[in-house]
Amino acid sequence: MKNSAVLLVQCRDQKGLDAAIAEFLYRNNGNILHFEQHQSNEDNFYFARVEWDLADFQLPLSEFTEKFDPIAAKFDMTWRVAIASYRPRVAILVSKYDHCLVDLLYRQRNGELKCEIPLIVSNHPDAQRHADFHAIPYHVIPVTKENKAEAETHEQELFRHHHIDLIVLARYMQILSPDFISRYPQQIINIHHSFLPAFIGAKPHLQAYERGVKLIGATAHYVTEVLDDGPIIEQGVARISHKDALEDLVEKGRDLEKVVLSRAVRWHIENRILLHGNRTIIFE
Amino acid sequence: MKNSAVLLVQCRDQKGLDAAIAEFLYRNNGNILHFEQHQSNEDNFYFARVEWDLADFQLPLSEFTEKFDPIAAKFDMTWRVAIASYRPRVAILVSKYDHCLVDLLYRQRNGELKCEIPLIVSNHPDAQRHADFHAIPYHVIPVTKENKAEAETHEQELFRHHHIDLIVLARYMQILSPDFISRYPQQIINIHHSFLPAFIGAKPHLQAYERGVKLIGATAHYVTEVLDDGPIIEQGVARISHKDALEDLVEKGRDLEKVVLSRAVRWHIENRILLHGNRTIIFE
Amino acid sequence: MKNSAVLLVQCRDQKGLDAAIAEFLYRNNGNILHFEQHQSNEDNFYFARVEWDLADFQLPLSEFTEKFDPIAAKFDMTWRVAIASYRPRVAILVSKYDHCLVDLLYRQRNGELKCEIPLIVSNHPDAQRHADFHAIPYHVIPVTKENKAEAETHEQELFRHHHIDLIVLARYMQILSPDFISRYPQQIINIHHSFLPAFIGAKPHLQAYERGVKLIGATAHYVTEVLDDGPIIEQGVARISHKDALEDLVEKGRDLEKVVLSRAVRWHIENRILLHGNRTIIFE
Amino acid sequence: MKNSAVLLVQCRDQKGLDAAIAEFLYRNNGNILHFEQHQSNEDNFYFARVEWDLADFQLPLSEFTEKFDPIAAKFDMTWRVAIASYRPRVAILVSKYDHCLVDLLYRQRNGELKCEIPLIVSNHPDAQRHADFHAIPYHVIPVTKENKAEAETHEQELFRHHHIDLIVLARYMQILSPDFISRYPQQIINIHHSFLPAFIGAKPHLQAYERGVKLIGATAHYVTEVLDDGPIIEQGVARISHKDALEDLVEKGRDLEKVVLSRAVRWHIENRILLHGNRTIIFE
Repeated sequence: MKNSAVLLVQCRDQKGLDAAIAEFLYRNNGNILHFEQHQSNEDNFYFARVEWDLADFQLPLSEFTEKFDPIAAKFDMTWRVAIASYRPRVAILVSKYDHCLVDLLYRQRNGELKCEIPLIVSNHPDAQRHADFHAIPYHVIPVTKENKAEAETHEQELFRHHHIDLIVLARYMQILSPDFISRYPQQIINIHHSFLPAFIGAKPHLQAYERGVKLIGATAHYVTEVLDDGPIIEQGVARISHKDALEDLVEKGRDLEKVVLSRAVRWHIENRILLHGNRTIIFE
Repeated sequence: MKNSAVLLVQCRDQKGLDAAIAEFLYRNNGNILHFEQHQSNEDNFYFARVEWDLADFQLPLSEFTEKFDPIAAKFDMTWRVAIASYRPRVAILVSKYDHCLVDLLYRQRNGELKCEIPLIVSNHPDAQRHADFHAIPYHVIPVTKENKAEAETHEQELFRHHHIDLIVLARYMQILSPDFISRYPQQIINIHHSFLPAFIGAKPHLQAYERGVKLIGATAHYVTEVLDDGPIIEQGVARISHKDALEDLVEKGRDLEKVVLSRAVRWHIENRILLHGNRTIIFE
Repeated sequence: MKNSAVLLVQCRDQKGLDAAIAEFLYRNNGNILHFEQHQSNEDNFYFARVEWDLADFQLPLSEFTEKFDPIAAKFDMTWRVAIASYRPRVAILVSKYDHCLVDLLYRQRNGELKCEIPLIVSNHPDAQRHADFHAIPYHVIPVTKENKAEAETHEQELFRHHHIDLIVLARYMQILSPDFISRYPQQIINIHHSFLPAFIGAKPHLQAYERGVKLIGATAHYVTEVLDDGPIIEQGVARISHKDALEDLVEKGRDLEKVVLSRAVRWHIENRILLHGNRTIIFE
Repeated sequence: MKNSAVLLVQCRDQKGLDAAIAEFLYRNNGNILHFEQHQSNEDNFYFARVEWDLADFQLPLSEFTEKFDPIAAKFDMTWRVAIASYRPRVAILVSKYDHCLVDLLYRQRNGELKCEIPLIVSNHPDAQRHADFHAIPYHVIPVTKENKAEAETHEQELFRHHHIDLIVLARYMQILSPDFISRYPQQIINIHHSFLPAFIGAKPHLQAYERGVKLIGATAHYVTEVLDDGPIIEQGVARISHKDALEDLVEKGRDLEKVVLSRAVRWHIENRILLHGNRTIIFE
C-alpha cells in the first residue's frame, strides 16, 4: 500500500480546473494515482477527487493549505485534503439488533474498514459481549422521553473526548434531536431498513409486507433534520415472494443492511463522498 | 409440450384439501405435472395451483365444473380451471413510448407469451408501424378531458368485440376512470416506472433523480381504483450513480420496464397469479 | 412456529402419487402446510417435499415407516422423513480464512440456522477465539502429507463421537481423501470461491483476475470424489471492474461466500434438497 | 448535447501525465467534461480517457495530432482522439437467432446507440424482414466448408466498401478464420451465451444445464484467434432453478444476451474501452 493523500474539490465549473490541480501536484513532484472528475449538467458544477503518492511529494502537508490556497481562491473552490494513512475515529451506536455492529467490527478487524472504533454506545446492555470480544469500550446510555437531552449531552461529551470523526447508527432505534444532528453535519450515517423513500418511519418491513412488494431494500444515508430524508449514500435490494412471512423479511433484510451500511461507511472514511444539495457524488 | 389444464384454488385452510384435489384428479385418470400450494400464516388461508396432463384425463372439461362442484362446495373454495392450450386474448394500450409494446410483440411472436394480441389501442398514431409490422390492427383513439368518457366507451366496445381477456397498459399515459377499471377486475396490468410505493404518480424518474436514489425501479401491478396502489405482480431495479443524468435514468428504466412487464403478463396468461387482498401469490 | 414433519420423495413418475401421499397424511389427520412437487421432463422423474403440522397428527412418527412402506413400495419410492424440530448436528471445518465460520456461527446463534454445532475442526489454531466466544469445542488437527490418513481418521472419530449429520467446509484448504468423502455421501458441503465450473482448483481469484472477468462468483456444492465437480446447491456473483486489484476480488468474494454457503447449509438442514444425478432439486 | 472530443491514452506511468494532458487542453481553451484515469498496480501502467467540450476549443482537430505529438512522444504514449459526433459505422452479422439483432436495431433507432448500421450480413435469409423494417441492406452470404474463404472475402469487401469501423457478431453461428480475425483487431465484438470461461465452445446452455448450475451467463468480448478467449467487455447472469428446462435457459439467456451485447457495443462506439493485454479497462 502506497501512502497517499486525497484532495476533494467542488466549485462552479471553469476552464483550467484539472490543469491547475494536476499542475500543482506535479510541480511539487507528486505522482497522481487516481483522478476522477464529475460535472453536473443541470447547474454546471465541478467535482473532483484526486489521490497522489506521497513518496516523492516535496510539499509537507502542513504547508499544503498555504500553498494551495491561491488556486482554491482563484476558482472559488470548496475543498479539503486528507491523508490516506489517517484512520478516522468512528463511534458506533446500536440498540438491540446487533448484526450491523458485529459486521462492522469484523470488517474493521480484518482491514476492510481502515478506521479506529474507540467506542460503542447503546441504549441497551445486550451487545456488550461483542464489544468485549473486540476490547472496545461499551457505554450503556439508556434514553427515555425524560432524559433524552441529558443522554445526548453525555454522548456528545464522549464523542468529543474520543475525537470522533464519524457517528454510525448501526440500527440505533432512537431519533436524534435536531440540535444533536446539527452539530455533526455529514458526520452521521444511518442505515434504514427500506428502499427509501418508500416506507419512511417506523416498521418499514411491516409496511413492505402489507404493501406486498416483491423486493425489500436497505438505505444508508447521512442524517439530516428531516427524518429519513438525508442524502442517500448507498442502497440495496433483495428479492422476496409470497412465501416470505414478516420474519423472513427481517432476516433477508439483515444481509442487505450489513452490506449497504459497511459500504457507505467505507466510502466515507476513504474520502470518496461529496455532497451536492441533497445528493451524493461517490467516487468509487 | 403436453396439453394440460390448471386448477387454481383458494379458501380457508382445512385438513384434506390436497388429498381431495389430488384424489379427484387421480380418480379421473389425470397425471399431475405440478402441484404447488401455499398457506398464509396470519389468516390461515390456503392457495393452490395444480397442473395436470390432459392426455389420459377421462373427464371432459365441459363436465369439470359439475363434477368438481361438490368438492369446492364442501371446502367453500374460490376456484377456476383453465386449459393451457387456450391462448388468452390480450389488448395492448400504448402512448408514445413504444419500448414495452415492441418487446411484448416480439415475445408473443417468438412463443414466449402464449397469447393472442388481436388489437393495439393508442391515443397517438406513433406506434402504428410496429403494429403493421406484426399485422395487428391499431386503433388510434385520442383522449382529451372532453371526450374521455366517449373514448373509454369506444375502447370497451373494441374489447368486447375482440373478446379481450387482459388489458396491458404498456406505458399508456392516460389515467383510466374508476368506472372503466371496475369493469375489468384483475384484468388490467400496468407498468409503473418506479419502485412502488416510492414515486407514485407523475414523472417518477424526475422524482427519483431529485431524491438522489442509487437504484431505480419498475413495477408491474394490477390496476385498481386507487392510483398506483393495485396488487404488485413484479418489480425490478437497476443501479444508477451520480454520473447518470435524467435521460440516463429514462434509458436504464426502459430495460427494466420491458422485463418486468413481460414477466407479469406471462404469469397472468399462464394462470400463475392468485390475489389475496392487495397482495399477489405467484406460482412461478 | 408449528411443529412439523417433512417427507421427501423421489421415484419414477406415475399417476396417483400426489393423491396417495396427501390421502395418507389426511387419513392420519395431518394438515399439510407445504406441498411442492417437481417433474423432470427428460427422464420423467417425480420429486416431492411435503411438510405437515404434527399438532393433530395421529400416527406416532415411530410407526411412520411401517405404515408408509406399502405406499412407498407400490410406487418404488426413495424417501425419507424428518421432524422439523430435530436440529441436525453440524461440524465446521476451517483453515485460516474465518469469515464463513464467523458468519455461520452468528446465524446459528440468532436462530437462522436451526442446527447444533458441537465442534469446529481446523488445521490451524487461528480461529480458536471465535470458537471460544461461542463456547464451541475447537480441535486443531494439523494436516501434512505424512499424517493425512491419520488426521482424517481422527476427524472421523470426532464426527462419530458427536453424531455429526453434516460436515461444512467453511474455506477448509485441505483436499479430503476419496475414502473420507465416500463415507459421507451428500453430507459434506464445500464453498468454492469461484463461479463453478469456471476456475476449478487452486487460486480461483487469481485465475479470475488474469482472465479479466467482469463478475466473480462463489459456489456451494456437495463434495464428491471429483474435485469441484459435486452437485451445485447455490451460486452467487458480484460485479468487479478494472479498478479492482486481486485483493479487492478476495474482499468482494468474502461477502459472496458467506451468503452462498449459509444458504446452502440452511436448505440442507431444513430438508429442502434432493439429488438427481449430479443436479440438485431445491424446494425453497 | 455538447459536441465533444475524446482522448484515450495509455503508457508507462510517469509523473506529470495528467498535468501535461490537462494543460495542453487548457492552453487551447478546452473545457474538460470528464477526466478518468486508472493505474494498474502490478505493472505500473497508466490509462486515461479525457473528454472535452469543443465549443471554445481553438485547435482544429485536423492539427491535433501535430500539436499533441511532442507530448505523446515525451511520455511514449499510445493514444487516439475521437470526435463524439462521429457516428461509427457498424456491420451486424447474424444467423437465425434474431433477438440481439432486433434489440440493437431498436436501440440504434431510438438514439441509445450513436452509430450508423449500413449493412447486416447473414448466412440465412430469416432475419431479412427486420432489416427491411429499418431499411437496412441485408446481405445473405451462405457459408459452407467449401466456400468459407470466398464468403469471408465477400464480407470483407462489403466492410471495406461501407467503411465499417466495428463488426458485431449478434449470435452469428460461424467461426471466423484466423486470417479474417487478424484484419480487425479490437474491431469484432461477439456475444457468447455463457459466463466465460465456463462452457467454452458449442452449446453452452446444454453444458450449463447438464452441470446443474444455478445461474446462467452471457459474455461480450472482442474476438481473437483463440476461440472464446478474447478480452471480456461485459458479462451478466440470471438465476435459474431445477424447474427450468433447457428451453427455459435459452429463453432467459436471450434477455441477458441483448443487454450484455448492447452495453459492450455502446462502450466501444463511445470510445470507453482500452485494452491491456487480454483485459479491458472500461471508462463507464
